[in-house]
Amino acid sequence: MTIAETVRRRPGRPRDEDLDAQILDATLQLIDDGEPVTLGRVVERSGVSRAALYRRWPSLTTLVAAALDIGRTIPPELPDDGDLRAAILASLTGGHSVTLAGYPEERFRQRIRLAMTDRTLQKAYWDSHVSRRRAGVERALQRAIHRGELRADLDPAICFDLLAGVFYYQLVVRGDRLTDPAVMQRCAEAFDIAWRGMVAQDGTAT
Amino acid sequence: MTIAETVRRRPGRPRDEDLDAQILDATLQLIDDGEPVTLGRVVERSGVSRAALYRRWPSLTTLVAAALDIGRTIPPELPDDGDLRAAILASLTGGHSVTLAGYPEERFRQRIRLAMTDRTLQKAYWDSHVSRRRAGVERALQRAIHRGELRADLDPAICFDLLAGVFYYQLVVRGDRLTDPAVMQRCAEAFDIAWRGMVAQDGTAT
Repeated sequence: MTIAETVRRRPGRPRDEDLDAQILDATLQLIDDGEPVTLGRVVERSGVSRAALYRRWPSLTTLVAAALDIGRTIPPELPDDGDLRAAILASLTGGHSVTLAGYPEERFRQRIRLAMTDRTLQKAYWDSHVSRRRAGVERALQRAIHRGELRADLDPAICFDLLAGVFYYQLVVRGDRLTDPAVMQRCAEAFDIAWRGMVAQDGTAT
Repeated sequence: MTIAETVRRRPGRPRDEDLDAQILDATLQLIDDGEPVTLGRVVERSGVSRAALYRRWPSLTTLVAAALDIGRTIPPELPDDGDLRAAILASLTGGHSVTLAGYPEERFRQRIRLAMTDRTLQKAYWDSHVSRRRAGVERALQRAIHRGELRADLDPAICFDLLAGVFYYQLVVRGDRLTDPAVMQRCAEAFDIAWRGMVAQDGTAT
């Protein structure tokens, strides 16, 4: 069932949310099919008028960025009383059937492809989506720094880049799949090296 | 001056190396122009016959992988008597005018785009090029492990993934440039965290 179908419940004039879902759904279909996303194609596939489309999405870039984020959610705040290392590792992997935090692999590859083609889109997607999804982990790291569990001189954003980078490396450079247990094992070992470099040693925490 | 021009020195029947350079040069031009690389286009742009092209490059995938590697070299072996941390950091950045180890940024973005489009190409490029360029750093890490400077339980390949991943994250996810000093600073700090997690502590080295 498509996103549009799940919200197309009532007869009569479509509600605004219905149109939004139809537009995003059509855009995501084009992305998943590997077709170029143009306003004309979105109009054609969504059945929404060009005027309605323009009114909602004056920029194709923000539309594509929003469509890429369908189905992804802002993760809940990480608890402070559990195993933070394990919680962050789990949040980065998001289970074994996906690549990173809930992305089907082919859509992940399309997202990177679009980002490499269009830096404006890449930056828009970063600002509106990736950076927001990272925020919870960064706040949890910051609290662990304040508690003295992690080194006082750490920048949580830099720690996140380091921890996440090794997963992207598998997908973008090696061309490996995170569904492969050997690949996940490699990522987990790299994660442990980084974590060891983050933990406060006796006497160094302030 | 193109690669073909630099080797096109003699009149008369072209030597094999001349044809190779013409083919690789034409392929790289197509990649840099963002045009789809097909056998027909390579024939057209290189002036080499289709038969000669097939004889040299039975697969378009290996041709594209080879073209992407033009101008890149296998780095020299890292010395064991210097600052290994600094030498590896320098080998990963390759100077500030490029992205990673000698790649102009736009070609880097094209490379990732092609890799995301075609996993066979991605794997071919990994096997024939990336994995070979990593080998020197991995050997240097292995020697440092043997000397007891780095932890005995490290896997050099995993260390490389971790150290390199943070640079890829800047380019592929953030859409930042390594020519930006703030970005390089971020990478260097992340590198230091990882390195701290790799260094043998007193009593843990074997």
